[in-house]
Amino acid sequence: MSSSRFEACLQDQKKRIDESLDRLLPQPDEAPGILHESMRYSVFAGGKRLRPILAMAAYEIAGGRDEVILPVACGLELIHTYSLIHDDLPCMDDDDLRRGQPTNHKVYGEGMAVLAGDGLLTLAFECLLGRGINGRVSHEALGRLAGRIAAAVGSLGLVGGQVMDVAGFSQDRRLETLESICRLKTGRLIEVSLESGAILAGAEDSLVDILSRYGRALGLAFQITDDILNVIGDTKTLGKAVNSDASHHKITFPELLGLDQARSHARLQVEEAKHALSPLGAPAWFLTELADHVLERQS
Amino acid sequence: MSSSRFEACLQDQKKRIDESLDRLLPQPDEAPGILHESMRYSVFAGGKRLRPILAMAAYEIAGGRDEVILPVACGLELIHTYSLIHDDLPCMDDDDLRRGQPTNHKVYGEGMAVLAGDGLLTLAFECLLGRGINGRVSHEALGRLAGRIAAAVGSLGLVGGQVMDVAGFSQDRRLETLESICRLKTGRLIEVSLESGAILAGAEDSLVDILSRYGRALGLAFQITDDILNVIGDTKTLGKAVNSDASHHKITFPELLGLDQARSHARLQVEEAKHALSPLGAPAWFLTELADHVLERQS
Repeated sequence: MSSSRFEACLQDQKKRIDESLDRLLPQPDEAPGILHESMRYSVFAGGKRLRPILAMAAYEIAGGRDEVILPVACGLELIHTYSLIHDDLPCMDDDDLRRGQPTNHKVYGEGMAVLAGDGLLTLAFECLLGRGINGRVSHEALGRLAGRIAAAVGSLGLVGGQVMDVAGFSQDRRLETLESICRLKTGRLIEVSLESGAILAGAEDSLVDILSRYGRALGLAFQITDDILNVIGDTKTLGKAVNSDASHHKITFPELLGLDQARSHARLQVEEAKHALSPLGAPAWFLTELADHVLERQS
Repeated sequence: MSSSRFEACLQDQKKRIDESLDRLLPQPDEAPGILHESMRYSVFAGGKRLRPILAMAAYEIAGGRDEVILPVACGLELIHTYSLIHDDLPCMDDDDLRRGQPTNHKVYGEGMAVLAGDGLLTLAFECLLGRGINGRVSHEALGRLAGRIAAAVGSLGLVGGQVMDVAGFSQDRRLETLESICRLKTGRLIEVSLESGAILAGAEDSLVDILSRYGRALGLAFQITDDILNVIGDTKTLGKAVNSDASHHKITFPELLGLDQARSHARLQVEEAKHALSPLGAPAWFLTELADHVLERQS
């Protein structure tokens, strides 16, 4: 059970992020309106904002106290959203539902969904590079950070993981292979979100390393839980078709390990994530509770 | 007729860019190999390298003498290539041929083509932010520049122009509308390529403005010529299906103005481009000849 302090903090961060995303995204009355409507549709379709929340938490642990983190945190969320839109396309996973709502291409058509994803990825880099920040931060720091994030989400990171997922690399039934696809597809963006917050606050390498190790274990726990929910959840709570992984013939953690083993594997990762935080003591309370929260989530 | 000095310089720059692209793109033996093969397929499918050549010429005019411009120039070419791959998809222009070769999705499938585009756009930002540059340039300058480029190619620039093109805004038969779509879709990347070269070399605003005005006129001339070639060219020289614009019910300059008027409109733009360069005198010789070259091109 999450503490009420944790819940309040989570909601507060989510609100700051949503307000900031609203400021950073072009309005639907800016041309081309249909594109901006489509970009906003997916960004405001009920995301958990995990990546920006992680970036902000890391920023605060590293001593950051101002709003400079917000556009960077939002950039990370935009990258996540673009990857979901492209991932859902008929030529990829062909999903009709995402977070309980029709996927972008179901509403706006495939061409627009491709372009909405392209627009979000590009806007993400604008945000990472200082959109919405008025000279209060070093462009040198932002430039280095954005380069690190680009490396994490490119062909050797998120995009590469997506290729392995689509191209059936996951027919290889080894836990090691599944974990490495999962690390590319989900893990690298989660890790780099934590690293970004810390780096932007000027953290030393040792702190960046701690948060990176936490993120690596958390990302795996998150994906395993996702797979489990895909099997046992109901469509209403989950917001997407149950068992859609199986219908795509994808190998998942519960399929490979069985449900019980998959659950304990996720729990092990959460323990590892929390253990990584131990040198930080009390200031890491939020990330510690967040790890449990990831394990307990229902959607 | 281009001078032999111009031709030699053009070939030399093209060679430097191709070598640099080869160094910056992951090799096909890096996993996922099929993705890297697909990215390389489109990058090395015979592009004219106009945008990086413009960036390098602007860099040299502004006094830049080293290789720092190369990764930035390559980043601009990667953005151009990603936009072509997505543009050719069945859910967009549905083109089978590009530069005389089957389009990316014809060879690798639609899912891979979407991801190859995503990978190239992300890699572009890695290049713009310092991939392949070893500490010889200010990351502050790169960060600011990459932010400017992102703004030029996002939903208010290149991606927005593509939406207008696909969504049938071009049914509006005013020259003004056609020019503004063209400016977004083609012009902004050409302009920002010139600006980038100048800014990276530390040019003053007045020089950046001159090159920007040159780019604006050149971009329009380039697009009009493209439209004309689409009507009068033959598939072999052109490398794509003749009259593919008409079959997409797109409004083009020759359709709107007639061939002769379209030709003189392009010539007018080239004169305007060259006129913009006049304060620069002799050092602008290459860009001056390049403007004529754009008008005379056969493919």
